[in-house]
Amino acid sequence: MSDYIRDGAAIYQKSFAIIRAEADLSRFAPEEEDVAVRMIHACGLVEAAAHFAFAPGFVTAARAALTAGAPILCDAEMVARGVTVARLPAGNEVLCALRRPEVPELAARLGTTRSAAAFELLRDRLEGSLIAIGNAPTALFHLLEMLAAGAPRPAAILGMPVGFVGAAESKEALSASGLGIPWAVVRGRLGGSAMTAAAVNAIARPGL
Amino acid sequence: MSDYIRDGAAIYQKSFAIIRAEADLSRFAPEEEDVAVRMIHACGLVEAAAHFAFAPGFVTAARAALTAGAPILCDAEMVARGVTVARLPAGNEVLCALRRPEVPELAARLGTTRSAAAFELLRDRLEGSLIAIGNAPTALFHLLEMLAAGAPRPAAILGMPVGFVGAAESKEALSASGLGIPWAVVRGRLGGSAMTAAAVNAIARPGL
Repeated sequence: MSDYIRDGAAIYQKSFAIIRAEADLSRFAPEEEDVAVRMIHACGLVEAAAHFAFAPGFVTAARAALTAGAPILCDAEMVARGVTVARLPAGNEVLCALRRPEVPELAARLGTTRSAAAFELLRDRLEGSLIAIGNAPTALFHLLEMLAAGAPRPAAILGMPVGFVGAAESKEALSASGLGIPWAVVRGRLGGSAMTAAAVNAIARPGL
Repeated sequence: MSDYIRDGAAIYQKSFAIIRAEADLSRFAPEEEDVAVRMIHACGLVEAAAHFAFAPGFVTAARAALTAGAPILCDAEMVARGVTVARLPAGNEVLCALRRPEVPELAARLGTTRSAAAFELLRDRLEGSLIAIGNAPTALFHLLEMLAAGAPRPAAILGMPVGFVGAAESKEALSASGLGIPWAVVRGRLGGSAMTAAAVNAIARPGL
């Protein structure tokens, strides 16, 4: 047991080398490949790469937004906590409204989940933001409804909710939305807060 | 898009029904099965169940610890944030020392990662605790070293770090440790903060 690697940077480097050796990343542009490697690192499954999809220009748009100081709007506290603040290029705010006290009543009034209702409370921060949805399909569905109804437009959307009910459908809806907002998704059931935060961290700063 | 399910409880129920229909849970005792279902729910992959392993009596020991007021000691903020406080039976503390200011210097002094060093700061909370390691193999290796050297004994250990370097080995070390402390692991590369928090949430309270 005493011979395990204890150097954090060395662990990252070796992990990323294993992922690049094993995963099929040939579909991706170079800047997408870096994001894909970190997402695989977060889930421990090289086969997940087959489900990643990026709209043209997504990484460039999302990175430019962060450089310009865009806030990162998350659907879950776990996503927000997974963002490495030290990597953010402009002291960007990382926001999640899920635990605000008005959310349960708002969700009941709107007839939806708390995760969906929480995005109503972020409406005034949508313009130019980076959206990071890694948990709740209803949050992604609700955001798409807000945007279709004319809400202010984010710079880019990470749509990566995980699960068995609505997750796949919400991500298909994002990639087929025709809103003209660059997106990244994990098709199907896979996704989650760790993969989503990992994607944000890769966008925030290339490399280790 | 307008016909998606908006009722949180209904989404959980339907998700768990899909998992029970698709996943092979036949290896598990009934109380382990509930934990396995929530762990699958967190990762979106029914095949993950093949990698779950529980020491005899793990769920009973972990649940009794929480009922008795044990703290939950986490290796990552994401794990801590994923624990649903409202499910905890005794207002249990959920602790993660990773961001304490003394951690970077301690890690440098010990020649290990910050995640490993952070467990040194929780030494006086180990006795009777529930350990929830979902991110860093080095945290699990270090904890095992502390225990082998006589540190106070936790009531149960969730060892579920994810990744490509040390994760599988650290979980094998836990399950082969012979410490007599009940454990649960996800063998191989899979694991992560979401699965670990989901396991804690299932242990904390059975059912939805």
